[in-house]
Amino acid sequence: MNDADQRVTLPVESDERYEEGVVDLLAALAYGELSAFDRLAEDARTAPTLTGRAALASMAAAEIGHYRQLEDHLAGRGVAIDEVMQPFAAPFEAFNESTAPHSWLESLVKAYVGDGLAADFYREVAEWLDPTTRDLVLTVLADTGHSAFAEREVQAACESDRKLRDKLTLWGRRLLGEAMTQAQRVVAERDALAELIIKGSGDLTGIAAMFRRLQNNHTKRMARLGLG
Amino acid sequence: MNDADQRVTLPVESDERYEEGVVDLLAALAYGELSAFDRLAEDARTAPTLTGRAALASMAAAEIGHYRQLEDHLAGRGVAIDEVMQPFAAPFEAFNESTAPHSWLESLVKAYVGDGLAADFYREVAEWLDPTTRDLVLTVLADTGHSAFAEREVQAACESDRKLRDKLTLWGRRLLGEAMTQAQRVVAERDALAELIIKGSGDLTGIAAMFRRLQNNHTKRMARLGLG
Repeated sequence: MNDADQRVTLPVESDERYEEGVVDLLAALAYGELSAFDRLAEDARTAPTLTGRAALASMAAAEIGHYRQLEDHLAGRGVAIDEVMQPFAAPFEAFNESTAPHSWLESLVKAYVGDGLAADFYREVAEWLDPTTRDLVLTVLADTGHSAFAEREVQAACESDRKLRDKLTLWGRRLLGEAMTQAQRVVAERDALAELIIKGSGDLTGIAAMFRRLQNNHTKRMARLGLG
Repeated sequence: MNDADQRVTLPVESDERYEEGVVDLLAALAYGELSAFDRLAEDARTAPTLTGRAALASMAAAEIGHYRQLEDHLAGRGVAIDEVMQPFAAPFEAFNESTAPHSWLESLVKAYVGDGLAADFYREVAEWLDPTTRDLVLTVLADTGHSAFAEREVQAACESDRKLRDKLTLWGRRLLGEAMTQAQRVVAERDALAELIIKGSGDLTGIAAMFRRLQNNHTKRMARLGLG
């Protein structure tokens, strides 16, 4: 089944199972924003310059703007965001605990790679959603324009330091691995969300193809940081 | 000299000493936003509910939006915000260290009282500024609409707990005292800013009157929290 059919055949209001999957998706996205806010705000304190501190703080602030949009949308459907986010707290916190940055540059790579990976995943899923939900998801994924800062900083630091570059390259792979682990945990625990993804990607082969695309984009992203 | 005369007699571009005072004022305001972002983001983690966590995170995000406006304005005047903010880092950090909240409710009272106090002060000073700078200051002070949340939470908690109310009332006085201490320190260290304030308020009697107004507003603010 290709994306176009999917969009037509997925009813917006009638299909309860679909609605359940969509709420899961938006709740996961919302908790991800809250959790990213925490992470970015904490890492901002370790910035070597006030410019860097303001840049990470701005990325954090953007997450909250997106969170509010998701909250409003869910409230409009009579869904309390705090309740539906609960199941996603553990996996996100587990990801952050297992990938606590040990330096300012590790923080920057994590912010850049983590947000990029999440954006890629949600953009894929967005294609299978009803137009209203799809537009919402694409809006809250809009790049906040601070990624250029991370690229500049990491490239400059690694230019003349091969050892640092190798270290940050491994760090990037670790981030990808931990993210995949937690994503699989979420899908295993949330049936409606799993169905949404399997239905959308067509079958298990479709899912495998999606994961390959995510990994390829990750490699390109690392290259933009001058890593890998 | 009343405010109206002041506005007319203060030249916008020509008076270098005035410009210096204005840069100090905007730099202090900007560092205050960065520092408030840190404080609010950190306190958001201690929130007992995801609603409270999102509320404090939203207040933090609003501070950064204001910070960016100040940065753009200063950049337009060829001033690098990181450099001019440096002198204000110590007093703000000293205030935050001396008033580290010990509970979620102390965090809420600090966010509410601290932001309100700062807003009152800058609104007073704004009256003595050239129209462009005055409009900027008033814009970045616009209430972010989350204060209602703090009022609800603190009132509800104190309603049936007189001991807690007394404790938070003392906490509010402490916040006022520490803020005044650091404000006086800043004015003592920054001549151009001190001149701006003395010139604006007319004389030392004018300054004394301004501080009385700040204290009266603080008392009213505490009352809105159900304290004092």
